[in-house]
Amino acid sequence: MKLRLTAEMRAALPIIETLQSGGYEAVFVGGAVRDAVLGLPVHDIDIATSALPEQTMSLFPKSIPTGLQHGTVTVVHQRMTYEITTYRTETEYEAYRKPKGVVFIDRLDEDLLRRDFTINAMAIRASGELYDPYGGLSDLERNILRCVGNADLRFQEDALRMVRAVRFIGAFSLKPAPSAWRSLKRHGALLRHVAMERVQAELDKMMGCKTPERSLIWLRASGLLSFLKEPISEGLLGKLRTESPRLELRGLSQLDERWASVFLAFHCKKEEAEALLLSLRFPNKRIGQIVSIMQLHDWMMASAQVALQEAWICGVLRFGQATAHSYLNIAQTLEQPSGRLTAEEAEQRHAILTNMPAKTLKELAVGGSELQRALDRKGGPWMSGMLTRLLQAVALGLLPNTKDKLLEQAKIWNEEGMNDEH
Amino acid sequence: MKLRLTAEMRAALPIIETLQSGGYEAVFVGGAVRDAVLGLPVHDIDIATSALPEQTMSLFPKSIPTGLQHGTVTVVHQRMTYEITTYRTETEYEAYRKPKGVVFIDRLDEDLLRRDFTINAMAIRASGELYDPYGGLSDLERNILRCVGNADLRFQEDALRMVRAVRFIGAFSLKPAPSAWRSLKRHGALLRHVAMERVQAELDKMMGCKTPERSLIWLRASGLLSFLKEPISEGLLGKLRTESPRLELRGLSQLDERWASVFLAFHCKKEEAEALLLSLRFPNKRIGQIVSIMQLHDWMMASAQVALQEAWICGVLRFGQATAHSYLNIAQTLEQPSGRLTAEEAEQRHAILTNMPAKTLKELAVGGSELQRALDRKGGPWMSGMLTRLLQAVALGLLPNTKDKLLEQAKIWNEEGMNDEH
Repeated sequence: MKLRLTAEMRAALPIIETLQSGGYEAVFVGGAVRDAVLGLPVHDIDIATSALPEQTMSLFPKSIPTGLQHGTVTVVHQRMTYEITTYRTETEYEAYRKPKGVVFIDRLDEDLLRRDFTINAMAIRASGELYDPYGGLSDLERNILRCVGNADLRFQEDALRMVRAVRFIGAFSLKPAPSAWRSLKRHGALLRHVAMERVQAELDKMMGCKTPERSLIWLRASGLLSFLKEPISEGLLGKLRTESPRLELRGLSQLDERWASVFLAFHCKKEEAEALLLSLRFPNKRIGQIVSIMQLHDWMMASAQVALQEAWICGVLRFGQATAHSYLNIAQTLEQPSGRLTAEEAEQRHAILTNMPAKTLKELAVGGSELQRALDRKGGPWMSGMLTRLLQAVALGLLPNTKDKLLEQAKIWNEEGMNDEH
Repeated sequence: MKLRLTAEMRAALPIIETLQSGGYEAVFVGGAVRDAVLGLPVHDIDIATSALPEQTMSLFPKSIPTGLQHGTVTVVHQRMTYEITTYRTETEYEAYRKPKGVVFIDRLDEDLLRRDFTINAMAIRASGELYDPYGGLSDLERNILRCVGNADLRFQEDALRMVRAVRFIGAFSLKPAPSAWRSLKRHGALLRHVAMERVQAELDKMMGCKTPERSLIWLRASGLLSFLKEPISEGLLGKLRTESPRLELRGLSQLDERWASVFLAFHCKKEEAEALLLSLRFPNKRIGQIVSIMQLHDWMMASAQVALQEAWICGVLRFGQATAHSYLNIAQTLEQPSGRLTAEEAEQRHAILTNMPAKTLKELAVGGSELQRALDRKGGPWMSGMLTRLLQAVALGLLPNTKDKLLEQAKIWNEEGMNDEH
């Protein structure tokens, strides 16, 4: 199959041509190939070649030996950088995360064989010809994520590939091939060999993709988070397992807003979120940003709660209990989201109403005549003002409903009032 | 067709039998017949008879002449009251609301002919036999509301029948026969001849039925409310015409809660609601109840608004503008209804944030050294406390951001603080 090269690939063609005119093979490989096949925007262009690193370097004056032991040379061309890696195969892997060494080879199909998933193991030649020995195109067409070769081996070589699998599944709307998923479910525990930094980078990429919601669902289904090198708190893991919030992350352009949104959606405490981010080696500045968004949310919720409780108590005093009950009934049926109460909220208000220490002047532990005597004042309109004020303080729980305390407070207010009059 | 008499009808059978043994015809008529056919609970049992009112009274010792000129006698039997009305026909109607007079007749079919809708013009004999000369049963089976005979005449005889039509349509899930609906749309203006009290009673019945939402939709479609004897305010009519709230009235057991809920759903101001209820001659006590539910709702909304604005301003000061912007972004995507902001609410908070007179200590019109000089105090931790307090007052709009005013306020707080220390 022949593809039209993307603009980014066309810009990199001179590099391939230089390698070819030196007598070597050179092709586009990796994520750019996959994205080009999918018709998605292409980012980093990676090139694989049969030239050895030294040979590549001798062809390009502006080159940097960024990873010579793995065969990688970075070439600068028209202000862009390109990674050029020699065809290689990897020897035995060490501790489930990196190969002990690499062997340079001269066959592209063997180079592609060392890659993780078939959709990432395709190459495009300068002609636009797709080279796809492991069926990546067909897997993409059938929306399947499949490991190159034996899934157990691939995940044992590098356990982080399991997290990558989840990212790809979500990002490209794939389903895992049954063999890959079974293997992933079996090998989760290998993640304890992977540095938290690498997990962090992978999770961040996942969160930054177009549909992080989908990846998160698969991440939960995978159970992988239980196996991190630094374990996540049981409480947080429980929430991740049991809650199923609907997430809407697409609209959020900043990664940290997405993280904060996920934590809030799963009802994480900010301490839990902070601990997780710390153990994932997030930079302190980002942890601060994420947690502070969560804190502002808490603050607004708590403020609303307190303010509405006080408003409710004052409303009950002002409009009476019968009206208050009717209001609770209708507020559950209102259409406007701002005015509508959930059954739970109505229940809470109901409880507040029931537990108010006093709801009417009759229930107040002092009456008008006692007030007159205690303050040594003649009756007048001041009395109802003072009684109402006392009632409100009692109802709000600021003053106990006992005769002494009420009269004591009335005396204070009385003196203040007298002072004001002067 | 033969029906099984309902328990309520069986309880009234002795009355019919007494009339029959006196040599007269007697049958069940009206709403109870319709409801029995529909299998609904039956309420008031009305009886029609060929006996003249005097003849009826002579047969029942416990009878009350409740409407002799219309032929109605109320009979008490086993603690229940029953209206017994002589077969009659009505002469010309007066002013689109009541007949000039009645003529007693001896034929049931002619009596039924004077009734409004076919579904209300059926009778049941003591035997259970349904007498249905105008096709009420067939209309019920096809879910159609049809006038008895000529719809124009029926609505001209009594214009309130148009409002009744809407009530029946909603309550029994009917559709109006095209002839009836056309006629209703043509004769709306006749409603100006009907006393507001009668409209009120009809609307109250409508609101009390099982599915008032449905009747309200038809009432709006009918346009009848534009034609009341005492017109409804243009503003309110406009809202009724243009807004389409989803109503959930079923759960509300009290009529007045339903009324309040409708007014709130249509965003009526309480003054508009009050004016409408007054002109509909609602009793003052009910107006008070309905309006007071609306007031408590307003109060809660306003309290929430003010409290949340203040919390927002303090939150911005505390967590900074960047966090505040991020919070507004994510709060629109949250799942929890309590924490979620609508785009409009987020916009409002955004505007508040933008318009805050000062957001950071730098923007405050006084600094630490000016404060020290003005208060003649040595530097210390008190300064940041005082500056923060000033900033908050400025941000909340309680204090203008000018040097004089800030220092003046600082002096007051300073003295208060000094006093507290003593």
